[in-house]
Amino acid sequence: MNTAIDELVGNAVAHEADFEGPRAVIPAKHVAIVTCMDSRIDSFRIFGLDSGEAHILRNAGGLVTDDVLRSLVLSQRLLQTREVILMHHTNCGLHGADEPALRAEIAADAGHAPPYAFGAFEDIDAAVRSAIARVRAHPYLPHRDRVRGFVYEVETGHVREVTLPV
Amino acid sequence: MNTAIDELVGNAVAHEADFEGPRAVIPAKHVAIVTCMDSRIDSFRIFGLDSGEAHILRNAGGLVTDDVLRSLVLSQRLLQTREVILMHHTNCGLHGADEPALRAEIAADAGHAPPYAFGAFEDIDAAVRSAIARVRAHPYLPHRDRVRGFVYEVETGHVREVTLPV
Repeated sequence: MNTAIDELVGNAVAHEADFEGPRAVIPAKHVAIVTCMDSRIDSFRIFGLDSGEAHILRNAGGLVTDDVLRSLVLSQRLLQTREVILMHHTNCGLHGADEPALRAEIAADAGHAPPYAFGAFEDIDAAVRSAIARVRAHPYLPHRDRVRGFVYEVETGHVREVTLPV
Repeated sequence: MNTAIDELVGNAVAHEADFEGPRAVIPAKHVAIVTCMDSRIDSFRIFGLDSGEAHILRNAGGLVTDDVLRSLVLSQRLLQTREVILMHHTNCGLHGADEPALRAEIAADAGHAPPYAFGAFEDIDAAVRSAIARVRAHPYLPHRDRVRGFVYEVETGHVREVTLPV
């Protein structure tokens, strides 16, 4: 049976024939972008990036988790990035998600619920502000002065900045 | 002063004028791809993906961390993906990284080292196999039969599968 992975790996063979050429390991724009895993966010296309220009970090929600902080420390200290874009998006699966119901469903299937929280949130602008605050408060990051937050509107392609209260 | 973020946000305005149109929240290919934050990995381009087709999860190394497992559970249970691609790459910053030296550098700057490990590894194929094993062992994931591992060669664009020992 052909799986979706087989199809994607076939596409990768075509990409290899059209390979853009090698690039340096240090991101040329010195930017790291943290965003959601959502399938409608093509971060290269949205931000006009070429291969070799920016680090891309993605998880469910685009939350600033411990794993994102670990990755940002490596990005800044080993690979010379110095600015951070934090981008949430409209119509996110975690926005208003019913986490107790999800945990109950998993417990019914697996016998117990996971030891971790899923990170559902109610207010998208507040979630972006909290993400900015968490990066700015992380003491192991050498560069915390250029950390900005955005919301990507999946309905229109618009990128809206979320500013902090003055 | 113009920052790199200003430039990328300017590019996003151009993208909005060329927006590909809205897509459904459920990824059309029902695949989640876990890979590294490395700036040379344009996952949409490599796998021939359009907007709306696959979840993309990325962190330093493409490691299967707790945050990746949290994200995969949401991807499968809330958003109907059922296959997983795990892709490491050559010339990764974490491959052979000197983690004790990094911790000492941070401690010298910040007064103490982070409470988390950075995840440096020595053998890339072993790292991919360990990633596959970790996803397959996660009890809260409903779909664990189509989990495959790959190495992306940033020098050539080639995608090589890493198979498990029989």
